[in-house]
Amino acid sequence: MGNDTFVRAITHRSVGGKNNERLEFLGDSVLGIVITSKLYEVLPKASEGYLSRLRASLVNEGTLAEIAKEMSLGDFLRLGPGELRSGGFRRNSILSDALEAVIASVYLEKGMEAAQDFVLAIFEGRLSPEILPSEHALKDPKSRLQEVLQSRGHDIPKYKLLHVRGEAHKQMFTASCHIESLSILTEGTERSRRKAEQSAAEVAYQQLMK
Amino acid sequence: MGNDTFVRAITHRSVGGKNNERLEFLGDSVLGIVITSKLYEVLPKASEGYLSRLRASLVNEGTLAEIAKEMSLGDFLRLGPGELRSGGFRRNSILSDALEAVIASVYLEKGMEAAQDFVLAIFEGRLSPEILPSEHALKDPKSRLQEVLQSRGHDIPKYKLLHVRGEAHKQMFTASCHIESLSILTEGTERSRRKAEQSAAEVAYQQLMK
Repeated sequence: MGNDTFVRAITHRSVGGKNNERLEFLGDSVLGIVITSKLYEVLPKASEGYLSRLRASLVNEGTLAEIAKEMSLGDFLRLGPGELRSGGFRRNSILSDALEAVIASVYLEKGMEAAQDFVLAIFEGRLSPEILPSEHALKDPKSRLQEVLQSRGHDIPKYKLLHVRGEAHKQMFTASCHIESLSILTEGTERSRRKAEQSAAEVAYQQLMK
Repeated sequence: MGNDTFVRAITHRSVGGKNNERLEFLGDSVLGIVITSKLYEVLPKASEGYLSRLRASLVNEGTLAEIAKEMSLGDFLRLGPGELRSGGFRRNSILSDALEAVIASVYLEKGMEAAQDFVLAIFEGRLSPEILPSEHALKDPKSRLQEVLQSRGHDIPKYKLLHVRGEAHKQMFTASCHIESLSILTEGTERSRRKAEQSAAEVAYQQLMK
């Protein structure tokens, strides 16, 4: 691999000058097509909604940082003095960005096929159909709760906004989730009404599955 | 090209059964890597922020629908009776989705290189460096206004929220933009404070450039 491109891929912007920001932008797209294409192939019956949620569960800062750690990418990173001192080589965002940049460096130096092989190799295990999360598991808590309730012949849950507290810029919403036929009543408090309902639904789901 | 895949690419979900939704999901990624890679190549000095805004200006429903119309893709679409009656073959979202699906069908039947050639051919003209919008033109109105003012040695503009009207779910925000040294005072009214300020800035920018 062209040494220059690889060195740039592991160079964080805190070093100044030539860094991995442009490569990260390119690598994100390379990663996108490789994972999308693979999911399309291994799940020939999956809806585009499920494919999209699956991809989001695989291509995100958390998963990329995990993979970067498995590769010990942190040991190679070139960081500026500030980031070095504050442990930047362990930070998820820095690791994830560097991994995307490394993917771009493989693409630029060796072409799409090599980049595809590289991405599939580092995602190994995470992409087998029997390990991929189910459609049900990837749904948001409200949808998941409703599905389970319907499959068991129960009423759908009722959501209610209980109160809104705090100043205009940092209001907190509290919502309840009520499943009458099961006497389940839960609450969630979050930064938006939608999130508060999801949070209440998640708690209700956990109670139901206990 | 495999006839099956192409027929599916031009089949809207209103037809029912086998349609282009999965292909559209795949085509979006193919389009993403081809355009990203091209921009990366033709603009070797561009920041990732500029590259990202440029890509958004090229890969969006409006531009894709324009290209689909240039190709007369609407004439080939397979639509259900409801969509046919309501003129779905002219709808931007349907045209844009179908074009992405057609890109995926080229990718699946002929491979990445052919898909790249196809995308670059249909985007022809839109990707030459001398035609691409400048970094300045792609910035949001507030940033653009501030850049021009600073380059001319003026004060930065002051923004003020004037009033919020309407019920909780459909509040309208009115903000002003004031450039004291030039006696420019404009207003904008939008669904959020941020948008209202951008809108006021846009009007001020237009006045300034007259």
